[in-house]
Amino acid sequence: MRKIKLSIIFLISCVLGAKAQQDSIIMSKIYDHSFYKGQAYDDLRSLTKDVGNRISGSKNAEIAVKWSYDLMKTLPFDCVYLQDVQVPYWDRGSKEVLKLDGGEDEFEILALGGSVKTPQGGLTAEVLELELLSDLRKYGEQVRGKIVFINKPWDESMVETGVAYGLNSFQRSRGPSEVAKLGGVGYIFRSLASSSRDDFPHTGGTRYTDGIDSIPAAAISAVGANRLSLILKSNPRQKVYFKINSQWKGNVNSHNVIAEWKGRVSPEKIITIGGHLDSWDVGEGAHDNGTGITGTLDAIRTLMNLGYKPNHTIRLVYYMNEENGVHGAVKYGADAKEKNDQIIAAIESDAGGFAPRGFDIKASSSAVTWIQQVWKPLFENKYWVSRFLEGSPGVDSGVWGKHFPNTIMFNFRPDPHRYFDLHHTAKDVFEAVDRRELQSGVAALASLLYLVDSQYESIPK
Amino acid sequence: MRKIKLSIIFLISCVLGAKAQQDSIIMSKIYDHSFYKGQAYDDLRSLTKDVGNRISGSKNAEIAVKWSYDLMKTLPFDCVYLQDVQVPYWDRGSKEVLKLDGGEDEFEILALGGSVKTPQGGLTAEVLELELLSDLRKYGEQVRGKIVFINKPWDESMVETGVAYGLNSFQRSRGPSEVAKLGGVGYIFRSLASSSRDDFPHTGGTRYTDGIDSIPAAAISAVGANRLSLILKSNPRQKVYFKINSQWKGNVNSHNVIAEWKGRVSPEKIITIGGHLDSWDVGEGAHDNGTGITGTLDAIRTLMNLGYKPNHTIRLVYYMNEENGVHGAVKYGADAKEKNDQIIAAIESDAGGFAPRGFDIKASSSAVTWIQQVWKPLFENKYWVSRFLEGSPGVDSGVWGKHFPNTIMFNFRPDPHRYFDLHHTAKDVFEAVDRRELQSGVAALASLLYLVDSQYESIPK
Repeated sequence: MRKIKLSIIFLISCVLGAKAQQDSIIMSKIYDHSFYKGQAYDDLRSLTKDVGNRISGSKNAEIAVKWSYDLMKTLPFDCVYLQDVQVPYWDRGSKEVLKLDGGEDEFEILALGGSVKTPQGGLTAEVLELELLSDLRKYGEQVRGKIVFINKPWDESMVETGVAYGLNSFQRSRGPSEVAKLGGVGYIFRSLASSSRDDFPHTGGTRYTDGIDSIPAAAISAVGANRLSLILKSNPRQKVYFKINSQWKGNVNSHNVIAEWKGRVSPEKIITIGGHLDSWDVGEGAHDNGTGITGTLDAIRTLMNLGYKPNHTIRLVYYMNEENGVHGAVKYGADAKEKNDQIIAAIESDAGGFAPRGFDIKASSSAVTWIQQVWKPLFENKYWVSRFLEGSPGVDSGVWGKHFPNTIMFNFRPDPHRYFDLHHTAKDVFEAVDRRELQSGVAALASLLYLVDSQYESIPK
Repeated sequence: MRKIKLSIIFLISCVLGAKAQQDSIIMSKIYDHSFYKGQAYDDLRSLTKDVGNRISGSKNAEIAVKWSYDLMKTLPFDCVYLQDVQVPYWDRGSKEVLKLDGGEDEFEILALGGSVKTPQGGLTAEVLELELLSDLRKYGEQVRGKIVFINKPWDESMVETGVAYGLNSFQRSRGPSEVAKLGGVGYIFRSLASSSRDDFPHTGGTRYTDGIDSIPAAAISAVGANRLSLILKSNPRQKVYFKINSQWKGNVNSHNVIAEWKGRVSPEKIITIGGHLDSWDVGEGAHDNGTGITGTLDAIRTLMNLGYKPNHTIRLVYYMNEENGVHGAVKYGADAKEKNDQIIAAIESDAGGFAPRGFDIKASSSAVTWIQQVWKPLFENKYWVSRFLEGSPGVDSGVWGKHFPNTIMFNFRPDPHRYFDLHHTAKDVFEAVDRRELQSGVAALASLLYLVDSQYESIPK
């Protein structure tokens, strides 16, 4: 009996060993292709320079939809199609102004997404500075007629900058409504920037509450926030002049862009891969999320060029409107649910195009353990990709995934050090992307896609 | 018996657990300090902008020595001193020229370190293009009177760019001598650049052989190499005009710069930490190796500022002349051996200031395994530092380490993707360094230094 057991173990090891060796050879071809023949970087140049930034609902967003459709059509997908999505269109208007009342020096600000405009001629008011929105209620009537300035510094001690972002981003999104409820007339928010030395404002989304009148809201650079705070310390009655020209322009027809590469063995089972196509309306949306969409497409192109034939259907999805509404992901999920799609796995890329470090995994603990034991060794020493931890899916997968609780989800994790230096700023341009880092990420994505497709059935569920 | 054993295991786990928890708290303070109060980035700005590049033997190298001494003197070291080192001084002279005979367009070249000058007025000759130096002998007499052009493309498929560099760097260092032996009159070497799209020449060292007359040698950019190769394919008899103005200027007195922080428990036992101070004579020597010297000093400053008292003596060493002779490391080793120093461990930083990934370790397998089991978990998930592999020490530690075979050596490994884009080029400037990445590396170095100092005796030897 013991002998038989050992034989079985030996047999399994041999089979696993041979399989690992085969995977290793295929990954070696993938990396070779990505570094030498990968085109994500060139596609990204075209997206950022020929199209530029592309906020949902804008003319540029529709140019980006067409750009994406045309790009997907160059590959041997079985079908490429647009999925209708209604998106809200918010327009920044002309440049914002924040300065001391009577002064000339302007602070670096950007209206927050969704902000309404200031009254004709701008508004002049005193400023109430707080660190935490939760302290607002203590001030009660003192809020009325004031501009509230939330000045909570970023926790710079965290290597995992995404966690530092999460610690504070709700103050950006919820702030304007909370201030409006108490009669405040404006909202100034310290930018979610990973350095207090940063003088660029970082925009981002807000969520207004039904039934509450909106108030104008802007992000101020970290340097500007420090300066304004110092001024207010010496003169708490200091007034500022604030002017924003942004407005909602109603709903607009837009699109998710989708392509499918039919599976040979189980075409009814689908692996979704992709990221959001829209961006904010500053910079070029290079790391957020040009690298995500050009990288995931290039991962598929790599497997196509290497002659791979997928077992399952691989569906590339470019979601519209992740930045200010996630209507694209909502629509994708509702349609997929209605059609009763069998989405077995999802891979999302929406954290930049820096050196790849790993994947967060939303799956059972036994699936995660298996992935750590079987797949991680293929990546770790040779390709410097070593984080395979239980974690959250990306924003879009997370939204549509509510209908698909059993889908195994992977969230691509590039190096986090530099992302929140340029996130949602004018600095997020093509020149901030390094080709080797981006193509190394493409190779990691292509390798994972290959492993998921070829070994999905082996993963303990 | 069984009960006792379990108790012992439980006790050990508790002790180890408490120790790990204490380490974790200290590392948390270290990271916090490094990101908020770290000064490596500011020191680096001063080194690169106030001093600039600093090739051994140059006036700037001595300015850098004084700069280093003064910087070390600002910290509460027990002593700071200069160690005399004789270094060769090689001077590039005026700008190099390589162009087609009769043409105007110049190729981007840099004389290789150690190159002699071309004859007065330059030289014009046919070009023999090869991929491998080892093929040279096949050509015998055909080499005479020609410029040999070694055009082996970089292996771009490797994430570990240092290995790709190593595959080819001997052709740079040995080429001129080998060509000279066969009567060749010049040497053009395809730059060790990690991208074939790179139009910057990358200089670097050569080794001339005693008794062989030197010939002029230069690195050509990868783009230039591709262009020259295409021209030679259509016309193998195409001559080029080549002019280099560099020369050896004899030996010069220079210095290693050393500081010591005396140990409280075993001051006779020494932990060396540092990197080389010299650089090539182009760019600003920012990643190579400004980040290494400012980073290791800042790691010590971090521990000092946190009130740490070392058990062993911590010796900071800035080596002179790593780039073209390693005379500083040779001298350091000879002196340490003569004084019978007990150097128990060494940490070197000479691979750039990118996001920290880990440390290569030169130690017994049992020591490496212990470090992987006990220390790696402290770094891996929270700080994204996860490579603790058996490997080579840095160049300087490797040189002096020949006298100290039992010293445990750590070689700092930052992310390798971007290093050979700027290594030994005009692109290696302060602006190519990211503060968060650099200070994250400082924190990793300070954490390792703390662990080595406080737990050296626990490491299985």
